[in-house]
Amino acid sequence: MARIIYVNGTYRRYSDATIHAEDRGFLFGDAVYEVCPVIGGRIIDEVPHLDRLERSMGELAILAPMPRSSLSHVLRETVRRNRIVEGWLYLQVSRGVAPRDFLFPAARTDRTVVCFARNQPLAKGDAQAAKGIAVITTPDIRWDRVDIKSVQLLAPAMAKEKARAVGAKEAWMVDRDGHITEGASSNAWILTKAGEVITRPIDPGGILRGVTRTVLLDFIAREGLKSSERAFTVAEALDAREAFLTSATTFVMPVVTIDGNAIGSGSPGSLSMQLRGLVLAAARAQAHSQPG
Amino acid sequence: MARIIYVNGTYRRYSDATIHAEDRGFLFGDAVYEVCPVIGGRIIDEVPHLDRLERSMGELAILAPMPRSSLSHVLRETVRRNRIVEGWLYLQVSRGVAPRDFLFPAARTDRTVVCFARNQPLAKGDAQAAKGIAVITTPDIRWDRVDIKSVQLLAPAMAKEKARAVGAKEAWMVDRDGHITEGASSNAWILTKAGEVITRPIDPGGILRGVTRTVLLDFIAREGLKSSERAFTVAEALDAREAFLTSATTFVMPVVTIDGNAIGSGSPGSLSMQLRGLVLAAARAQAHSQPG
Repeated sequence: MARIIYVNGTYRRYSDATIHAEDRGFLFGDAVYEVCPVIGGRIIDEVPHLDRLERSMGELAILAPMPRSSLSHVLRETVRRNRIVEGWLYLQVSRGVAPRDFLFPAARTDRTVVCFARNQPLAKGDAQAAKGIAVITTPDIRWDRVDIKSVQLLAPAMAKEKARAVGAKEAWMVDRDGHITEGASSNAWILTKAGEVITRPIDPGGILRGVTRTVLLDFIAREGLKSSERAFTVAEALDAREAFLTSATTFVMPVVTIDGNAIGSGSPGSLSMQLRGLVLAAARAQAHSQPG
Repeated sequence: MARIIYVNGTYRRYSDATIHAEDRGFLFGDAVYEVCPVIGGRIIDEVPHLDRLERSMGELAILAPMPRSSLSHVLRETVRRNRIVEGWLYLQVSRGVAPRDFLFPAARTDRTVVCFARNQPLAKGDAQAAKGIAVITTPDIRWDRVDIKSVQLLAPAMAKEKARAVGAKEAWMVDRDGHITEGASSNAWILTKAGEVITRPIDPGGILRGVTRTVLLDFIAREGLKSSERAFTVAEALDAREAFLTSATTFVMPVVTIDGNAIGSGSPGSLSMQLRGLVLAAARAQAHSQPG
């Protein structure tokens, strides 16, 4: 069936899903977005994703395009019309269409809202997780406001291309001090040989507040695992017992090599797989608890 | 009359100038652009602008969407159809439409080409230059590849908004070492009390290779003025005899205050105005030398 894309109030066939050429999202990358997992046809973690969207819009002085309940309806309807069972949902809000000028147009300029969704079977992620993925490291050349989930995404796209060129799936970005900030589209984690789970803190920055990251930190605390939110170096990552990443579309994904060097045994770590199981089980439970 | 926007092979009315919602320019800011001045209905500095566009595309592995002669025809036709006498021409090339993925789609994916133009009387710029403009300084929070003229423009847009909030017209961005890199959409220059014209060098970076900047450096060399391409601090700028900026749409524009502090006499500097005159005269001569 033809895919349906929501654009500014209407659900359109793929070929008719157009925006104006003077949209600020296109001319300035002046837009924010969210990606939510979908399981059993239900949207996972909608509340924290819409919370974060609101924060991103707030930081850029983009007014909410509609009440949250309406936005929530759009998300649901997009999943339904595309018959998504397992996959993900994409929502983007740009500042809207205005004669090209760096200066923001009037705040009440109609924002542009685009929403689409894709099927992506969980089994595919499971198969990937069973093998683990390769990551590379690359200098973090992004702008300073990576805390805002904006479409300023050329640097991450270039980093992913660099990873693909050597057969890797993700790039972990490294700041001037040699510390890993985050993946191009994920958060980075290690389990040290001393048994401590480490991920970079939100403050003083350099990363996006990942929704799956927050979910996992809660699990780790609940399970009583030793953990620390602190910056870690590439050397520490190479010396780790396990490494993994988190994102809305991969949940928890074991990392088996970094820059071609095996991490731990070179196979997906047992804690990584255990945490993946916990996060996926919670997501499935969340899906089942939602009304039809 | 209705404005005409070129989009992918056709000249469309403003309201019909649409691109697809999954354009990578919209989803990732994965696009490059150029702005050329127009005088007497003729495009100024087309060659260096298209040279730079090619370089930007090359750095991002975006293939040219059409031969340069065809692109040149689009530029001319857009000026003609919009009856632009004095103003500017905007050209953007994105990597095209593809299912959302950070990874670049096949290089032969149709690139998206958008071209539009606006009238902007030279007299307006002259009136502004006679008064000079106020600039502010703000930390340079952009990504590291500002040498590529891409639409990763949220940071410059935010900087311009910050300038507007205090009645200034431009923001000069400052690197970690306290040196001015460039304006949000211009290059920054000072004339020291010792009579030296200074602007930041292209290498090791932090700036875009401005076309007007290059033109002006040639004039300065030809006039035998003392000059230096080196980084300068905010303190040096505040202590300067004159300050000005260059861009394709403002040519040379005197700066009379920085962060509210008067530069020199607090009026447009005489050398700044002289250089503006030279650049404008050359642009006019270039317009007149072009065939009808």
